[in-house]
Amino acid sequence: MTDFTQIRYDVADSIATITLNRPEKMNAFTNVMMREMCSAFDLVDADDAVRAVIVTGSGERAFCAGADLTPDGGGDVFASGSKVESLSDERVRDSGGRLTLRIFQCKKPVIGAINGAAVGIGATMQLPMDFRLASDTARFGFVFARRGIVPEAASSWFLPRLVGMQQALEWCMTGRVFDAAEALKGGLVRSVHAPTDLLPEAQKLAREIADNTAPVSIALTRAMLWRLPSADHPMAAHQIDSRAIYRRARSGDAAEGIASFLEKRSPNYPDKISTDLPDFFPWWDEPAYK
Amino acid sequence: MTDFTQIRYDVADSIATITLNRPEKMNAFTNVMMREMCSAFDLVDADDAVRAVIVTGSGERAFCAGADLTPDGGGDVFASGSKVESLSDERVRDSGGRLTLRIFQCKKPVIGAINGAAVGIGATMQLPMDFRLASDTARFGFVFARRGIVPEAASSWFLPRLVGMQQALEWCMTGRVFDAAEALKGGLVRSVHAPTDLLPEAQKLAREIADNTAPVSIALTRAMLWRLPSADHPMAAHQIDSRAIYRRARSGDAAEGIASFLEKRSPNYPDKISTDLPDFFPWWDEPAYK
Amino acid sequence: MTDFTQIRYDVADSIATITLNRPEKMNAFTNVMMREMCSAFDLVDADDAVRAVIVTGSGERAFCAGADLTPDGGGDVFASGSKVESLSDERVRDSGGRLTLRIFQCKKPVIGAINGAAVGIGATMQLPMDFRLASDTARFGFVFARRGIVPEAASSWFLPRLVGMQQALEWCMTGRVFDAAEALKGGLVRSVHAPTDLLPEAQKLAREIADNTAPVSIALTRAMLWRLPSADHPMAAHQIDSRAIYRRARSGDAAEGIASFLEKRSPNYPDKISTDLPDFFPWWDEPAYK
Repeated sequence: MTDFTQIRYDVADSIATITLNRPEKMNAFTNVMMREMCSAFDLVDADDAVRAVIVTGSGERAFCAGADLTPDGGGDVFASGSKVESLSDERVRDSGGRLTLRIFQCKKPVIGAINGAAVGIGATMQLPMDFRLASDTARFGFVFARRGIVPEAASSWFLPRLVGMQQALEWCMTGRVFDAAEALKGGLVRSVHAPTDLLPEAQKLAREIADNTAPVSIALTRAMLWRLPSADHPMAAHQIDSRAIYRRARSGDAAEGIASFLEKRSPNYPDKISTDLPDFFPWWDEPAYK
Repeated sequence: MTDFTQIRYDVADSIATITLNRPEKMNAFTNVMMREMCSAFDLVDADDAVRAVIVTGSGERAFCAGADLTPDGGGDVFASGSKVESLSDERVRDSGGRLTLRIFQCKKPVIGAINGAAVGIGATMQLPMDFRLASDTARFGFVFARRGIVPEAASSWFLPRLVGMQQALEWCMTGRVFDAAEALKGGLVRSVHAPTDLLPEAQKLAREIADNTAPVSIALTRAMLWRLPSADHPMAAHQIDSRAIYRRARSGDAAEGIASFLEKRSPNYPDKISTDLPDFFPWWDEPAYK
Repeated sequence: MTDFTQIRYDVADSIATITLNRPEKMNAFTNVMMREMCSAFDLVDADDAVRAVIVTGSGERAFCAGADLTPDGGGDVFASGSKVESLSDERVRDSGGRLTLRIFQCKKPVIGAINGAAVGIGATMQLPMDFRLASDTARFGFVFARRGIVPEAASSWFLPRLVGMQQALEWCMTGRVFDAAEALKGGLVRSVHAPTDLLPEAQKLAREIADNTAPVSIALTRAMLWRLPSADHPMAAHQIDSRAIYRRARSGDAAEGIASFLEKRSPNYPDKISTDLPDFFPWWDEPAYK
């Protein structure tokens, strides 16, 4: 993890923190940052000691001010030199979408602590996170139509799920920058805090999950809630949750969950994500880009 | 209906009331209760005199405090004795999901009157109901991850449709118990009432539907609103509602609906669910568990 | 456009206004009005000078009081004479759905300015619009079940996307008429205004989009946000937005978007919807009625 150059990755008290770390550039997004963030999520998933992950930005001004359009950015998106034979070429893939699809697959709760300006990919990278807490100094902008491009990072799939169609359309069609109060009212963020309270509140939410719940239960819950609502019929959920209840009810975690509840004490769940996910997990094939 | 041992089933003024009736056990859920509730919904659907159904709990403490984990519960979910060859075995099916899929198929409006603690299956059984009214003493908990298991009863399909992704994730990932005010703010319940007002308010809503609308129209509306939004394109809804308007516009109900409106009087619709659903209903095949 | 008899079509300052124009009939909907509205949306899409469209009603009383059930209405829906061999017959198609599917396909932002009573098709025709602003004198009613028919115009697909399941069910199952405050609280309308402020506020929103964003970006954004959330997996959105970003980032619009942003001036985007939509648009086949 000491190899990271544009992010920081820290683990303390079973909570990982990924910090976008280009404060002099308002943490502008680059392909390097994208790859480092994906690697950090690999670390999160592989480490049973990590129960939740917080994503925040370095400095006081910005969470992430968007894609770095300067030569420093090294982005291929705005470069006109490269040519591809087909739009199915892997090189056509939007780098923001590579990141959000990676976050979508995470097995741990993902908490955004939005500490300042969050524009473009700085706004859309938040959408596959489970929770967004904002500083009262945060600002948001789905500004793509004002730059001649379009909402990216699969945000057209994620945003209406979070805020409904009318609000998603207004933010994406006007491209306006809006403040934390509007983000709260519109349902984008769950809560707004003074800047000094932001990380402590994100950690408090992470702690509430880490101290009370079973890791394997959370990994299953995350996949179920993000994936099963897309099914045509609730039978799809019934098929998965029946299997999950059947397997989990026979686990040491279920025995410990009930025992700790009855004994009014903190639980100590034995099962680990690395070894104890049920045999039917994953129940899906991740689709390929084409 | 006098055969029921863990619920009560009453019909008055065209409104059926299903009362979970194990007050000494906080109306804890058992396989017996599940089967009796499914039978009660069969009665609701078969009886043209029933226009709406209210589901509530007996006693002042609980709506339903979750699955009965004691020997009284008779649950197979937490029993370790039974073995199955395959997770497709019918015996693997979650009993909560059997109930919610039955409620999903109901042809009448379903109103939850949540009179107290509603935890685990006590919370998830509410989700396929059309409306949830709560007493200000009610508490809710999607506590599964705190017991080492996962959200069941197809709740991963239902809950995000009701409260959006961020709220659904927070309640299911923290597993916290929350009060009626949080349930109202989050969109889970439509209204909160003093305990003595709860049933009268639920009956008032049932009356508003029963006194003004055509039973066949309501059965079609319920199926359309719960099923058609899952389609990829609004054409799926256009195909069904075109057929429905074509058939219903030629019905005695439409003539009575217009006549009673023009004459400013209460309607008296001739069509019955038992005999007058249009020929294309149901337009779907209910999927099998596999 | 001078041929229109039941609507008015005006274009000023790059904003088109479609006015339902039967004020003596409370702008009641007819097949003539449906065809004229569809033609007006064809004009909107074909005219690069039009950046957004406002739909409103003539007079102070009504936006649209529903289907015209009198002989003047000329509606086949409530006529009992016509016979069809099959429900797949084109003549069975609901006229409200013909209109809403046309609005669904519009390439420009659609803003409803709801100036009065909006009942039946007057309520459901609003749902495929991107935004709904209401006068404080507006009233709404999904009254179908009170007339013996069912929600039409593909509203069972649209309404839950806008207001969630519980609210959609309550409005459709009670069939009650409700005021602008309830419409705002329930999420149906984005804002409520004094009658004299309604059109200016709608124009202000249209201006915000027209003055700042690229037309081709908006056409793509509209299609992406309405269509891609129906996919099972965010990969569907990633595949489309990767292509869109790749093509658009190499466009004159992207250069102008960045240049105008850096130079803090109004943009002047070169690309036109008539000629410059990317080669992969549309990426879907519009389904046929069957």
